[in-house]
Amino acid sequence: MDLKEFIQMQYMKPDEIIKLQEKRLRKIIRFAYDNAKLYHDKLKSVNLKPEDIKKVEDLRKIPFSSKEDIVKDPFGAVGDKKNLYKLHTTSGTSGKGETIVYFTYNDWEHYAIQNARCLNSAGFTKDDIVYNATPYGMFFAGQVLHDGAKVLGAFIIPASTLKTGWAHINNIKNPFFKPTAFVGLPQYLLRWGHTYIAAGGEPSKSTLKKAYVLGEPVPPTVREKIEQMWGLDCRIGYGLSEIGASAECDEKNGYHWCEDEVIVEVIDPKTGEPVEEDEKGELVYTTLTKTGTLAIRYKSGDESAILGRDCPCGRTHAKLRLIETRLDDLMKVKGTLVSPYTIEHAMFAHDIKGFLCVIDKEKDSDVIRIYVKAKESNTLQNQLISEIKTTASFSPTFIKFIKDLPQIGRKGKRVVDLRKESPLNKLVYEFEDSVSK
Amino acid sequence: MDLKEFIQMQYMKPDEIIKLQEKRLRKIIRFAYDNAKLYHDKLKSVNLKPEDIKKVEDLRKIPFSSKEDIVKDPFGAVGDKKNLYKLHTTSGTSGKGETIVYFTYNDWEHYAIQNARCLNSAGFTKDDIVYNATPYGMFFAGQVLHDGAKVLGAFIIPASTLKTGWAHINNIKNPFFKPTAFVGLPQYLLRWGHTYIAAGGEPSKSTLKKAYVLGEPVPPTVREKIEQMWGLDCRIGYGLSEIGASAECDEKNGYHWCEDEVIVEVIDPKTGEPVEEDEKGELVYTTLTKTGTLAIRYKSGDESAILGRDCPCGRTHAKLRLIETRLDDLMKVKGTLVSPYTIEHAMFAHDIKGFLCVIDKEKDSDVIRIYVKAKESNTLQNQLISEIKTTASFSPTFIKFIKDLPQIGRKGKRVVDLRKESPLNKLVYEFEDSVSK
Repeated sequence: MDLKEFIQMQYMKPDEIIKLQEKRLRKIIRFAYDNAKLYHDKLKSVNLKPEDIKKVEDLRKIPFSSKEDIVKDPFGAVGDKKNLYKLHTTSGTSGKGETIVYFTYNDWEHYAIQNARCLNSAGFTKDDIVYNATPYGMFFAGQVLHDGAKVLGAFIIPASTLKTGWAHINNIKNPFFKPTAFVGLPQYLLRWGHTYIAAGGEPSKSTLKKAYVLGEPVPPTVREKIEQMWGLDCRIGYGLSEIGASAECDEKNGYHWCEDEVIVEVIDPKTGEPVEEDEKGELVYTTLTKTGTLAIRYKSGDESAILGRDCPCGRTHAKLRLIETRLDDLMKVKGTLVSPYTIEHAMFAHDIKGFLCVIDKEKDSDVIRIYVKAKESNTLQNQLISEIKTTASFSPTFIKFIKDLPQIGRKGKRVVDLRKESPLNKLVYEFEDSVSK
Repeated sequence: MDLKEFIQMQYMKPDEIIKLQEKRLRKIIRFAYDNAKLYHDKLKSVNLKPEDIKKVEDLRKIPFSSKEDIVKDPFGAVGDKKNLYKLHTTSGTSGKGETIVYFTYNDWEHYAIQNARCLNSAGFTKDDIVYNATPYGMFFAGQVLHDGAKVLGAFIIPASTLKTGWAHINNIKNPFFKPTAFVGLPQYLLRWGHTYIAAGGEPSKSTLKKAYVLGEPVPPTVREKIEQMWGLDCRIGYGLSEIGASAECDEKNGYHWCEDEVIVEVIDPKTGEPVEEDEKGELVYTTLTKTGTLAIRYKSGDESAILGRDCPCGRTHAKLRLIETRLDDLMKVKGTLVSPYTIEHAMFAHDIKGFLCVIDKEKDSDVIRIYVKAKESNTLQNQLISEIKTTASFSPTFIKFIKDLPQIGRKGKRVVDLRKESPLNKLVYEFEDSVSK
């Protein structure tokens, strides 16, 4: 496994990329048809034979697949059942249940290389000391980034999750650790930074110089806060356990997808028809090298656009616009569709340490209660209300300044819609009870 | 890396093993002297040159090293500083502070193979579905067993730590998981078993058929409970991040140490002199293949004995008597030295679901308060008192039957000595307060 060769592939000429994709596509469709019940049945249902799929465009003949298909029968999406190495699961918080993703040894090697390419794209080198704060275990991110950093040749501190933010801050300050590069959720850096500053620390003087953040959409205001607070260069990554990963390059305006590994389509989620380049739609993936859990025309629920193959960094693999919205997360509030991303962007444009926005229904009307971790201030309150009105088109029912915020779920949701049932709602009820006392 | 070859080495003739050890010993002592400050200084302090160490017996000329040395200067024990891959830490609960252990890529490969040999010795095969409940992250066990199972060719469910025992029970029951082999702390299986049975479940009907447990000494009564409860074959393992790992074979009466990787000596901890074969003493290790953090005559604090190279399983690598005592854990209670192991063995000989034994001082006298998770019963109370008296030579101040026990520390201590300061004591105080209310 030579990382250099794989990195070089990101600079292939576009027609070479397409040629390679089509070669792999023909092979994988044949393989899927012969081995994976889910895709065999999908092709059969529209009377397709593997040999009908020759070009990237031919993919459109195949019906979509989705998380629901895999939740129903995880093994139905698996091709090579004999060489499986392990499984990972996604959290079932979207309400659709847990997705089980199976990996062969070969799949995992591809994932590790993909992540090494991502880290390389994000500016990490073999000389970095990588502080990996993504969770190791059932969720794939910790291990896949660990193995990616290993392929890159970097030194790794496998922090994973720890009991408190202070345990992490102490690790970052540890004179025997001296991490130069962070990997994990963006909000970890935000939260630890505030905690550290409150205790008189100066995160900007830490040894960290780079961050590769992922796991949730990152509004520009959040990126700016992190960069300023820690004095580092923050790149955004994006990955799905079912599909793979992609990362920003120096340009910081989109992820370079590994086109030799995955074909990405962008469709209108209502009609299922492809949209134009640069136009937003739902991302649909077809994996080309995996033989464990396969994804053929797999609807991701993520909204983005393809930005073309012209990047000043020299990479020719198509860039995806940074993810702002997971379609599942869109909420209708007072008649308008909003995404948590928009609300977060508006809130973090101001000097706040965190917030929780609760959408609820009272007497058949939508109400929006916002709790803000910041010093109480009328000016700030007015700024926040006006900003939310402008960017998210609704007025909050109230804004309350508070000292501490609860952590809602592993990723720490900041916008919670109580109108939808979720096991996480209980935490919000308890928090609101405690605040109103 | 051919696992078969490494497994075959465990069947070498004893004189071949010693020849190999001495060849590696000469090389590693030279390497340590030239590259690792700690060991250079130790040899210098007694005017030793690397060429003075030719035979295993020559090791005795070298002063001991210990955890304290590495805590003081973690980098001083590192040889190859250029090819480091990662670090792991041990918990600092012994009061001596956190040990940082550095690994090169090559070190880790050796560790993975060592663990594959351990799993093989414990009866695991490539056909197993391994449920790995050891924590991944800063602590090395999760990752090292994961990579060991990978080398073995098994399928892995990387469970790591989860929020609740039920999350694990549900994984074990998950019809898409079907684990056949468990790896983790023995008390996990005990605890989950009781929880599952209390809810009407039958752990003995689970798909688990094997367990490889480690992380704490395992009294025979605990092993029996686990085997009976889950209907499986339970093997005990033993490992130190600084040194490596070893496991029981079919004989279930000692760990086969990887003698090609590590030389083990057994010494009288008071005099530092070697003891006879079969005689108990402190284990002292010298690693032969690691080039990251080296261990040269490293005092482990673990008490055991070497049982010779004659094992019906055919392996010729010396067997170590199962660890019963960490010398650090020995406590003087009412004038008698006891180990937590002895207390656990006595308690679990009875029908209890768990216990917490608290050693404390009141008015200059030792007191022993025991909280037992079991149905209140005078008969059981008398049995437990008599058993403790016989095996641990003291009488508990009281035994109280309770419904729920607190988890004390990551490994869940069952014997806590409040006379020694520890951050874990707070949990015990809180628990005892809540019980006395």
